[in-house]
Parts: sequence; C-alpha cells; structure tokens
Amino acid sequence: MSANGLRERYQAYLDCLNCQAWAELGRHVHEAVEHNGRPLGLAGYHAMLEGDHAAIPDLCFVARLLVVEAPWLGARLDFDCTPWGKLFGLAVNGRQVRFSEHVFYRFENGRIREVRSVIDTAAIAAQLMVG
Amino acid sequence: MSANGLRERYQAYLDCLNCQAWAELGRHVHEAVEHNGRPLGLAGYHAMLEGDHAAIPDLCFVARLLVVEAPWLGARLDFDCTPWGKLFGLAVNGRQVRFSEHVFYRFENGRIREVRSVIDTAAIAAQLMVG
Repeated sequence: MSANGLRERYQAYLDCLNCQAWAELGRHVHEAVEHNGRPLGLAGYHAMLEGDHAAIPDLCFVARLLVVEAPWLGARLDFDCTPWGKLFGLAVNGRQVRFSEHVFYRFENGRIREVRSVIDTAAIAAQLMVG
Repeated sequence: MSANGLRERYQAYLDCLNCQAWAELGRHVHEAVEHNGRPLGLAGYHAMLEGDHAAIPDLCFVARLLVVEAPWLGARLDFDCTPWGKLFGLAVNGRQVRFSEHVFYRFENGRIREVRSVIDTAAIAAQLMVG
C-alpha cells in the first residue's frame, strides 16, 4: 500500500476511535494485533480502547505528525483532556492535562498488526506538580 | 534528500554520539536545533548530550526501528544501560535498566533541525519497583 494509502487508512482508524464505532474496529485492526509486545488480539485491543474512553470521557485522538514508510506509520498524537481518577498511575482526578504519545504502527493488508507506543507520562506528572 | 540518504545521515549521527566525537556534531546537527520545543542551539544540544553520557557511562544509541519520510525520520531507540545516580528524576543508582525512546527528527539540508522525543520513563520506574 502506498504512503498516502496508509495515511488514509490511519485517519479512518482515528475516526473510528473518536466516534467509538467499535463494530467497525475490525476493519482497521488485525485479529492478531500486538501492543507493546503483548498479544492482545482484536478483543483485547477493543477492551483497552473502551477502558481508555471510560477513564477519559473527552478523549480525542488527533495526529499532529505522521511519518509514513510502508508498512510502518509513525505518529505524534497530542492529547488535551480531563481524565477521571487515575491515569497511568497518576492521580489526575478530573484536572485538565496535555501530553503526547509517540507511536509506531505496522500495517498488514491494510490493518494494524503491531503497535509500539510510548506515552509522555512525565509531562502529566509535571503538570500535576505545578498545579 | 531520499529516504535512504536520510537513513545514512541518521546512522552517521548515531555513530557520532556513540563515539562521542563532539567536534563533528555540527556536521549532523543544525546550529538552530530545537529539542521538544526548546531552542537549544548546537551548543545547548551538545551540552545535553555530554550530560547524558556523564550520567550514563555505558550509554549506547541503537535504532531498532526507522521510519523515514523526508524531511522527517522516526526512530525507536532501545537503551540497556546502568546510569549513575538519578535518571529522569528516578533513583537508578547504578542498576541496569532497559527503556525505549520514540523520537522524530526533522532534517534541513541534511542536518537535524528539530527533535521531538518521548522517553518511556514509566518503564524505568516499573523496573526499579520490582527489583
């Protein structure tokens, strides 16, 4: 698939997440998807995403940077949200926080087969300390 | 510059870091380089790298994944090292830790002009807790 094709596939995946259109998740994510080395599979991946939305009611996935070289796509995602309770072990408790995720996806036949994600939890901790 | 050209330029940059060949850093890094939005400039960037090597005597930069789409290059760097004292505010004190950095570089005329980096500090904290 071309770089532009992957870019379109990825934006369709983000739209699916933002609309919480879980019935369509399998169009974007492979049944045997792995996340940071864990073999979650589609059901486990779906559960992880639903948990994210439950913890962060105003969660919105926005890609600020895309770097595409098939079969890989790298993205910088910027979040600006108000999570309930704890997030990544940090007591956010409804405060507004901003942080980034740097994530690489490997596509297989147009679907996400592997995800490698690092989240800037240190930025969240720093925002909680200064507040 | 082609994707393969950027890949070679980037590997030469990592070689420069691993050899601590600071006199050559200006060949790889732009005078006006920015790091996570901070206008460090070449001198500030050099100082940051020397500080990293001082804190982590066995620091070695190894790219496990490169995703290239000029002028951007995304990399997953895996570190396996034994930092002295504190690292990212965590009391590592000479223990062996493994962690990843996901980083995007924007090249300008063959040199690094902008860096956006997220380090998996949560992984380090988890390793210190289980030890």
